[in-house]
Amino acid sequence: MNDEAKTGRGRRPTIADVAHRAGVSKGLVSFALNDRPGVNVATRDRILTIAAEMGWSPDLRARSLSTNRSFALGLVLRRDIAVVAGDPFFPAFIAGVERELSPAGQALVLASVPSSELEAGTYRKLAVERRVDGVFLADLRAGDERLALVQELGLAAVTLGHPDIDSPFPAVSVDDVDGLIATVDHLADLGHRSIAHVAGPSSMLHARRRSEAFHAACIARSIDGRVVETDFSAQQGGEATRALLADASRRPTAIAYSNDLMALAGIAVAQRAGLSVPRDLSVSGFDDSDIAQYVFPSLTSVATDALEWGAVAARALLAAIAGVSLDDTELSPARLVVRESTGPAPATYPSSAPPSPGDLADPDD
Amino acid sequence: MNDEAKTGRGRRPTIADVAHRAGVSKGLVSFALNDRPGVNVATRDRILTIAAEMGWSPDLRARSLSTNRSFALGLVLRRDIAVVAGDPFFPAFIAGVERELSPAGQALVLASVPSSELEAGTYRKLAVERRVDGVFLADLRAGDERLALVQELGLAAVTLGHPDIDSPFPAVSVDDVDGLIATVDHLADLGHRSIAHVAGPSSMLHARRRSEAFHAACIARSIDGRVVETDFSAQQGGEATRALLADASRRPTAIAYSNDLMALAGIAVAQRAGLSVPRDLSVSGFDDSDIAQYVFPSLTSVATDALEWGAVAARALLAAIAGVSLDDTELSPARLVVRESTGPAPATYPSSAPPSPGDLADPDD
Repeated sequence: MNDEAKTGRGRRPTIADVAHRAGVSKGLVSFALNDRPGVNVATRDRILTIAAEMGWSPDLRARSLSTNRSFALGLVLRRDIAVVAGDPFFPAFIAGVERELSPAGQALVLASVPSSELEAGTYRKLAVERRVDGVFLADLRAGDERLALVQELGLAAVTLGHPDIDSPFPAVSVDDVDGLIATVDHLADLGHRSIAHVAGPSSMLHARRRSEAFHAACIARSIDGRVVETDFSAQQGGEATRALLADASRRPTAIAYSNDLMALAGIAVAQRAGLSVPRDLSVSGFDDSDIAQYVFPSLTSVATDALEWGAVAARALLAAIAGVSLDDTELSPARLVVRESTGPAPATYPSSAPPSPGDLADPDD
Repeated sequence: MNDEAKTGRGRRPTIADVAHRAGVSKGLVSFALNDRPGVNVATRDRILTIAAEMGWSPDLRARSLSTNRSFALGLVLRRDIAVVAGDPFFPAFIAGVERELSPAGQALVLASVPSSELEAGTYRKLAVERRVDGVFLADLRAGDERLALVQELGLAAVTLGHPDIDSPFPAVSVDDVDGLIATVDHLADLGHRSIAHVAGPSSMLHARRRSEAFHAACIARSIDGRVVETDFSAQQGGEATRALLADASRRPTAIAYSNDLMALAGIAVAQRAGLSVPRDLSVSGFDDSDIAQYVFPSLTSVATDALEWGAVAARALLAAIAGVSLDDTELSPARLVVRESTGPAPATYPSSAPPSPGDLADPDD
C-alpha cells in the first residue's frame, strides 16, 4: 500500500479524522456515532453531519462482516397485498416495532409474498444475503414449516402466538381467544341465541383457535353458533353477511367478525337490507382499530393492542439476537370493548319482513 | 493461507462448492443465486437450500462493499405513529413498492419518526451506515429541507409529488388537485352552495395545494367554501365536522375530506346528530381506500391508486440508483369515484331543526 492510499483522498476517513475536523475527542465521536447516551443532540448531529460529509463509514457493513450481524429485522407477510393494505392490524404492529427499532439503530425489512413457494425463497434470501438477523413469524399455520426453515437458516425468530408444534423460538402472544369468548358471553347476556362468527382463513392457527373457542363458548351458553370462513377482506366479510342474513330459517341475531374491516362491511350490508344495528342485528369486530370508535354506531370490538404487541415482539427479537434466552411472553389478554353496535336481541324479527333476496343483492352486481 | 483454511471447515464456501454439492454447473448456481431468468423454480429452490445449508454468502455484504450498494430502499415517515397506523394510504403505497422490490431482490427499510430533529438524524444514519441506496421522499413540505440533506448525503431519491423548490430528484406525481376540483364541480352540479374542505396539515405541500385548488374551484362556481385544517386523524376529522355542523349561521351542505378515514368519522358525527347522508349532508373522501365501497352509504372518494403509485415510484428509484436519468413521471390524475354519500343539496334544512349542541357533543366526553 503506498502512502497516497494511506493518507490521500482514496483512503476511507477514520474516527480520528472526523474528530479532528469536528474539533472533539475520538471518544466523543465514537459515542456519537454509536448512539451512546451522554452526547447532547446538537453535538451528535454536528458530528454525524461531518462524518457524512467526509464519507465516513466505519461502519455497518464492515461491522457486519466482522460481527456477522446486519442490525435489521425482517417481517415477511403471506397475505394478499390488498388485504394487507386494507387491514389496520399490520400497520399498527409495524408502528410498534418501529418504536423499538428506531432508537436501537435497527432497521425493519419488510416483504410481502403472494404464495407459499415465494415465501420460503424470501426467507432464504434474507438469510443468505444476511439482510436480517432475525424475523417475526406472523400468521402461524398448522404444523408451520417456517419454524424448521428459519432454524435451518440460522436466523433468530419470535413467533406471534404459540405454534401447534415444538418451537425453538420464544413466542410473544396475546390470548385473543378470551376476547372472543367474552364476546359470546356478552351477546348471550343480551339474550342472543343464534350467533355467527365470520372468521379468517382456517389455514391460520389464530383463526382456527378463535373458531374452536367460539364453538365451545356457544355450547357452554346453549347458543346456536356457526362459523363462516373468509380471507379477512371487507369484500368477503360483506359476502358472508349477505349469505347469513339470507338464510331465513336460521338467521343469526348477532355476528362476531374477526376484524373491524369485515365488521364495518357487515354493518353496511345489514343497513342496506333495511336492518338497524344493533336493534335488529348486533355486530362486533376484532382488533379495535382506530376507526372503531369513530363510526356510527360505534363498533364493539376485541382490543389486542397491536402497537404494544409490535413493540414487545421487537424487544424479544432483539434480545434473542443478542443471545439472551427468553421465556415466552404473554401480553395482557385481548379484552372486549363494548360500544354501540351490540344490543339486546330482538324479541321478534323487525316489524318489517326479513329482507327480500333483492335487498340482499350485491349493489355492484 | 494454509491448506486447512483453503479447503477446511473454516473457509467460506464458494459458488464452485455449492455447484459441486448440488451436482450442477457453476453457471447455473450463479444464475440461481442472482435470480436470473431461465432457472426453473424447483432447481433454484434446491440450489438456494444447499447454499444456505453450506453457509454460502458471496454475498450481499461483500458485493455491497465492492459496489458500494446496499440493495435496499428507505421510506422515512414523519407522521404520528397512530395516524400512520390508521391511514390506509401508506400500507397500500408500501404494498406497491414491495410488488417491485421483491422480484428485484431489493428490500424496503421502513422508519417512522415523531419529530423533524429525529427525521434528519434518521436519514443521516441510513446514509452513513449504507443501509439504503435511495429514499422515497413523501409528504413534501414547503421549502423542504430534506432535498438538500439527502443530496448532501449522496443518496438517490424520488419525490412523491413536486417540491416547491428546485429539486435534483425525479418526481413521481399524481395530480390530486384535479380530483378535488372534480369534487367541487360534482357538488356544485348537485346544487350545493356552501361546502367545506377538511384538509390535512398545511405544513404538507399536497394539503396546501389541495386547499388552494378548493378555494379556486369554489370561487369559479360561486360557492361559499371554507377549509378546516387537521392532522389527518379520524379524531380531528370528527371534531372538524362537529364544529362545522354547529355553526348554524354558515353550515355547509357538503364536506369534502382529505382522506377516507376522516370522511367516515364525519359521516358518523352527522348521523349521530340525526342527519342523514346524503339527504341532509353530502360527504366525500380521498384515496378511495378499500373500505370506501363497503360502507353504507358507500363513500364518494377521489381515487389515487396508492398501490400503483408505490410501484412506479419504486421503479423510478431503482432506475435512479442504476444511474439512469429520468424525467418526472405523472401518473393518471386522481379521479372522482361517485358513490352514495353525495347527493342533491337539501332544499331547506331537514324537517327537524338543526341539531342541538347536545346532539353534537363528543360521545366520549
